[in-house]
Amino acid sequence: MNKYGLHGKLTATTGNGDKLATILLQAAELVSTAPGCRLYLVSKDQHDAESVWVTEVWDSQADHDNSLNVAGVKELISQAMPLLNGRPEKGQELQVLGGAGIR
Amino acid sequence: MNKYGLHGKLTATTGNGDKLATILLQAAELVSTAPGCRLYLVSKDQHDAESVWVTEVWDSQADHDNSLNVAGVKELISQAMPLLNGRPEKGQELQVLGGAGIR
Repeated sequence: MNKYGLHGKLTATTGNGDKLATILLQAAELVSTAPGCRLYLVSKDQHDAESVWVTEVWDSQADHDNSLNVAGVKELISQAMPLLNGRPEKGQELQVLGGAGIR
Repeated sequence: MNKYGLHGKLTATTGNGDKLATILLQAAELVSTAPGCRLYLVSKDQHDAESVWVTEVWDSQADHDNSLNVAGVKELISQAMPLLNGRPEKGQELQVLGGAGIR
């Protein structure tokens, strides 16, 4: 296996972490059937109530980039942007070799 | 969903990154049927040839801790230890809320 992985953090303004997580879970549902989507995981940071981590695995970086065009995704991004505390950091890019539990 | 996630890096001594990744892929296979194992992903760092990331999701932290007792896992740890460049950093603990592609 050789897949494109991305692990990145989004931080909300105070009190908005759960709202941000809910939006990202909706995004996960939208992209779940997009071509090349293997994983789109949404997690809270155990030590920071306002931070949400998104862990993605795609067949290719192009598949990831195309997911931004899935119907409804741009609307969710528009909902999330005002909740963010600054610009999202660039995620950590991974070359996923394999493992257990990945479709 | 509310699962225990762990995202951590192991760094090998120069030239041993691929060997370390191979051992971790064997570990993924061993723990794939352990109780509570949802995900055990092995990735290379795109910017560091000797670093390997392991991304795990378990039903609970206890399930994760018990996985160290799965037959063969301690042998693999013994094989990996001499390849490491220092002690592994403590992984990043996540509260996994859900998403797509997780079993």
